[in-house]
Amino acid sequence: MSLNTFGHLFRVTTWGESHGPAIGCTVDGCPPGVALTEADIQPWLDRRKPGQNKYTTQRKEPDEVRILSGVYEGRTTGTPIQLMIENTDQRSKDYGDIAQSFRPGHADISYHQKYGIRDPRGGGRSSARETASRVAAGGVARAALKALVPGLTITGYMVQMGVMGIDRSRFDAAQIDQNPFWVPDAQAAVEWAAYLDDLRLSHNSVGAIIEVVADGVPPGLGAPIYGKLDSDLASAMMSINAVKGVEIGEGMASAALTGVENADEIRMGPNGPEYLSNHAGGILGGISTGQQVVCRFAVKPTSSILTPRRTITRGGDETDLITKGRHDPCVGIRAVPVGEAMMACVILDHLLLDRGQTGGIRGQIG
Amino acid sequence: MSLNTFGHLFRVTTWGESHGPAIGCTVDGCPPGVALTEADIQPWLDRRKPGQNKYTTQRKEPDEVRILSGVYEGRTTGTPIQLMIENTDQRSKDYGDIAQSFRPGHADISYHQKYGIRDPRGGGRSSARETASRVAAGGVARAALKALVPGLTITGYMVQMGVMGIDRSRFDAAQIDQNPFWVPDAQAAVEWAAYLDDLRLSHNSVGAIIEVVADGVPPGLGAPIYGKLDSDLASAMMSINAVKGVEIGEGMASAALTGVENADEIRMGPNGPEYLSNHAGGILGGISTGQQVVCRFAVKPTSSILTPRRTITRGGDETDLITKGRHDPCVGIRAVPVGEAMMACVILDHLLLDRGQTGGIRGQIG
Amino acid sequence: MSLNTFGHLFRVTTWGESHGPAIGCTVDGCPPGVALTEADIQPWLDRRKPGQNKYTTQRKEPDEVRILSGVYEGRTTGTPIQLMIENTDQRSKDYGDIAQSFRPGHADISYHQKYGIRDPRGGGRSSARETASRVAAGGVARAALKALVPGLTITGYMVQMGVMGIDRSRFDAAQIDQNPFWVPDAQAAVEWAAYLDDLRLSHNSVGAIIEVVADGVPPGLGAPIYGKLDSDLASAMMSINAVKGVEIGEGMASAALTGVENADEIRMGPNGPEYLSNHAGGILGGISTGQQVVCRFAVKPTSSILTPRRTITRGGDETDLITKGRHDPCVGIRAVPVGEAMMACVILDHLLLDRGQTGGIRGQIG
Amino acid sequence: MSLNTFGHLFRVTTWGESHGPAIGCTVDGCPPGVALTEADIQPWLDRRKPGQNKYTTQRKEPDEVRILSGVYEGRTTGTPIQLMIENTDQRSKDYGDIAQSFRPGHADISYHQKYGIRDPRGGGRSSARETASRVAAGGVARAALKALVPGLTITGYMVQMGVMGIDRSRFDAAQIDQNPFWVPDAQAAVEWAAYLDDLRLSHNSVGAIIEVVADGVPPGLGAPIYGKLDSDLASAMMSINAVKGVEIGEGMASAALTGVENADEIRMGPNGPEYLSNHAGGILGGISTGQQVVCRFAVKPTSSILTPRRTITRGGDETDLITKGRHDPCVGIRAVPVGEAMMACVILDHLLLDRGQTGGIRGQIG
Repeated sequence: MSLNTFGHLFRVTTWGESHGPAIGCTVDGCPPGVALTEADIQPWLDRRKPGQNKYTTQRKEPDEVRILSGVYEGRTTGTPIQLMIENTDQRSKDYGDIAQSFRPGHADISYHQKYGIRDPRGGGRSSARETASRVAAGGVARAALKALVPGLTITGYMVQMGVMGIDRSRFDAAQIDQNPFWVPDAQAAVEWAAYLDDLRLSHNSVGAIIEVVADGVPPGLGAPIYGKLDSDLASAMMSINAVKGVEIGEGMASAALTGVENADEIRMGPNGPEYLSNHAGGILGGISTGQQVVCRFAVKPTSSILTPRRTITRGGDETDLITKGRHDPCVGIRAVPVGEAMMACVILDHLLLDRGQTGGIRGQIG
Repeated sequence: MSLNTFGHLFRVTTWGESHGPAIGCTVDGCPPGVALTEADIQPWLDRRKPGQNKYTTQRKEPDEVRILSGVYEGRTTGTPIQLMIENTDQRSKDYGDIAQSFRPGHADISYHQKYGIRDPRGGGRSSARETASRVAAGGVARAALKALVPGLTITGYMVQMGVMGIDRSRFDAAQIDQNPFWVPDAQAAVEWAAYLDDLRLSHNSVGAIIEVVADGVPPGLGAPIYGKLDSDLASAMMSINAVKGVEIGEGMASAALTGVENADEIRMGPNGPEYLSNHAGGILGGISTGQQVVCRFAVKPTSSILTPRRTITRGGDETDLITKGRHDPCVGIRAVPVGEAMMACVILDHLLLDRGQTGGIRGQIG
Repeated sequence: MSLNTFGHLFRVTTWGESHGPAIGCTVDGCPPGVALTEADIQPWLDRRKPGQNKYTTQRKEPDEVRILSGVYEGRTTGTPIQLMIENTDQRSKDYGDIAQSFRPGHADISYHQKYGIRDPRGGGRSSARETASRVAAGGVARAALKALVPGLTITGYMVQMGVMGIDRSRFDAAQIDQNPFWVPDAQAAVEWAAYLDDLRLSHNSVGAIIEVVADGVPPGLGAPIYGKLDSDLASAMMSINAVKGVEIGEGMASAALTGVENADEIRMGPNGPEYLSNHAGGILGGISTGQQVVCRFAVKPTSSILTPRRTITRGGDETDLITKGRHDPCVGIRAVPVGEAMMACVILDHLLLDRGQTGGIRGQIG
Repeated sequence: MSLNTFGHLFRVTTWGESHGPAIGCTVDGCPPGVALTEADIQPWLDRRKPGQNKYTTQRKEPDEVRILSGVYEGRTTGTPIQLMIENTDQRSKDYGDIAQSFRPGHADISYHQKYGIRDPRGGGRSSARETASRVAAGGVARAALKALVPGLTITGYMVQMGVMGIDRSRFDAAQIDQNPFWVPDAQAAVEWAAYLDDLRLSHNSVGAIIEVVADGVPPGLGAPIYGKLDSDLASAMMSINAVKGVEIGEGMASAALTGVENADEIRMGPNGPEYLSNHAGGILGGISTGQQVVCRFAVKPTSSILTPRRTITRGGDETDLITKGRHDPCVGIRAVPVGEAMMACVILDHLLLDRGQTGGIRGQIG
């Protein structure tokens, strides 16, 4: 797992800049014979695409994906699947100012320091636009998972935006698709809208926490020690733009638990082990247990804001910078489908890895 | 980064079980010509070794490391460095019971489900004993970093144990080595001792949060997109036994910040950029900025406790299980040197990666 | 090095089928700041492109390369470089027959056995068309090498076609570009033309041996033990379609040499070591010595021929198969620029790897 | 595949120097549940071990392998298997002279140039002693293959030593274990003994060609494009000390064949496809066909000889060097079990890779 490639056997290599002619990815290692057309991928991209409401960037991109290879007569052939999305609404003039100055909190300065050169148009390679490629790859992973593990589902949603949380007692999965925040709580959706409107109009932005749950994951996935299911999830989620923290199950809160509280006690059910709680988030020793895999990640507030911030130029002069352009007041919103996509890729990858090493035959209980 | 190997160019492959004859690791890709003897590694192992006080397992292990290869006349040769630590205090009889039952919250069940076979003696491969190999590898990484980036320091400490936190206004780095908790707060050390005594005597255990700070990291380290410095740190820390969450800079708390607050404003100092805050934890866009790299991780409470918990046997029968044996009441304590070691390995690895691709020449500012 | 990706730090991931909409590759890990435009890559593709004379396939492809990412204002940015070549002269009707039958000596049957599905149009992924992506990637590698090791040259040529060899006493590098066979021997070029005409008209094809020489390679490149410069070259060349053998220096003939003969004796010259011979082909212990790196590989005859051969169908019926279509009578001819490209990629990759581990500082002699 | 690690899913990381305390390897990714004890590995090491007759080095090493991890109650657990072989007959005094001078044809000079430091005792890391680790790893691979593909066999033998070849019409597999050359031709064994005696007594050495055949390999193994079964075999064999050429099937001789000759025609047999010849060496398009996989490699003559050769010292002075010590007059002899081991590792690795991606279900014929 390195550089611009993610995964062990199911491998995704992304390429492209925000304002170049196109972005895309090569998906390598997909099982052969999986039913796949653009129509299997496009709906996931549509969920992520910008300009859908006033809470996301006003950039208008159809984000139409094309499959350039690896599929023959509607089935994957086992060879690399190239997915390409053309950039159609680049407006490079918006970004003229930031070519010389570094936005505080943005990768401008670190890219400059590393490479000595950077594509400043829309953030270039460091733009969140790269995540469209991940969502496309996730669409391929979902198609393969559908064939290999029919009951498996992956669901992402927001659980916090700025200081606003959700009330888990009102958790309603049916609400997730009914509001612009992917929040499973109808009342929160209303309150968050007002909260974000205020922030947006005051030229500010805000962070968020996204939770992604995979249900129906077979036990036995994960490759200890350094390819644990949770260490790969941590790497996957932390690699998403603006993510600053990743949690599995209880996450950081597990520090405050005692061993008595934290033990997910086990009973024997008709179909195997059943757990009385899920503090572990479905992973023990880096290997899935068959419980829900639960992962959360925090997204920092968008650093490109209309409020002036102190910074320096490439020449070393001090200046104040306002970032014009079309930016998300809460970039965490669009991170929901991205987190789902990464979950799909990681699970499929480990399913193939596990099948490779063990043959996919599970240790019996009972 | 996968399976039992960690890293891209500086690569560590660990091997060994808790109660086998030995454990160890192969460190590959170390720069040649680095001064290295066992005496450079042993002190780090001594910090992690068990049985030093009543707050860690009473297993008595000298944890003496031997260098079997890769060093000639006190200098690394650039070839693989094999580090071996013999296991000398195995007591397999302690673990007879758990061969048939699965400890709740432990990897017993998931290893069984994946492999259909497991070494139950002391947790086998899933034992925290594996982390001794990491600390040894970290010793090599530190020796190489000392040669390549003389001023760089890496410091780990506990900031939370159970419900007990530290008061950052009392932060005193000089205290870290003065108490069994590696806590930078003398008053906390006293209070934590009483708290943990109570938990231990009531046959319970507790979680913790460790913070690791690297100071003097050059800007430009990190390989976007899927080998970001922070995604590799996340993977590294999450791969440590019992870790359930990883944070960079503000971490999960960044969700509650606004863009105005979160912007680390930049001024020009005599030696280059200076930042007015460090919400980012020293990493932007996956690349180091030259600020302190700040990483935290949460360790769940030890799952092996003397309080009975409900579980099942391999045969599918329900039972109550008490885990006898020598277990840490707070396994997070010994995770401090492990977290430091992973930080050292990740930074050295990215230093070499960066030097490979860019030649290590930095983009100028001013 | 695996699947559809080649290289360690300088990594090439190719994608695409012979008759899909396009083929291409992602070049990751290129140093930043390298001058690069399509004009730096196109000339190498033009050397490989089909339909240039009667000795190569009559498929007419302009093979125009487009750079879709990773370059800004004519310089590489250190991010992935996506190179795309559209397929413009697909004629799928030519390949109708072979969808059901397996061409003897071709990958039809093995792809079917592995994947259970294959794209039969023009050989799909197993077509030699994939090598255009390699040549494009090689163009990037050459641009980077030009910046990093100015004097380095890479030259490929044919030394054998069928039973026809070259006379090394007539070796004339200036001839290489003067004939359709890239043969450094004007007289051989004439004789080979007659020989290949006969074979072509008799509905037959023939094999070849290509030699690739890199001059000016710095000493110290190569990563023992399993990333030796020669093992990576062997892997690189053997991965080219139809290659059945790879040699370094004396190659297979070294078996017949004695130790006295084979020792490349060393004298001290004004600029360092000088060798009295080069049986080793410039590589000792997997590491370059500073001598010319010499690699040869054998390409088997094209398996798609107009002479009927006995085979079976997917249904298991026996049949005789004639392969119509546009095939090279000696596919080895177009393998010359491909071999050069692989050499360029391997050398650049090892230059970066070496710089990463050792800093690129060489052990002194004298 | 890189540096000191070989393989994709079944991965071998070797470590150790000729005259250090021990050598060994970590075998990662082995399927769980495979019956394995030292007794399954030792016989392969015994075939390779030195000092067995006058044609191999007189170093006396028992080469006893110890399993330090990854096996529980005689079965692999799926965790890393550490294999260690102690060095017991180091005589560093033998090597005092060559610490300052570079043996022509040996890796002394290239290691010095790369690393600026080298362990001169017995060749250090570049010694053929490293191949004992490969043979041990191959023993593990064979044990796993025995469980997964019961009928599969791997057989290596010499087909050429210096100018002496074998007569294929006298090929007798039963002879292989009956002579010190592993030559399948009783008459050749007698002639070769005389030939090698002469060379040895004249302080000379000689090269060799080894052929390794795998029988019973399932069709469908190999991961195009850059992890082809043959490109991985080429890399594997070329990584063996002193190897200068690798061939699959017809190898370099395929250059002289026509397409009509080279087509391995196919008929339908009772159990699937049957081939009328095997010019391809069992691999098409990088994927196994179910035929015998045939690989050959050339080993150059031992460079450490008692005949003086011209060379230079580290200080840049010219000198004549005689290499005393205990050297094989034909190092190719002991390369036979090494080649077999590499074949076993590559095939098992691809079996696991293929099972991972495709599930191991084969495309039907008939």
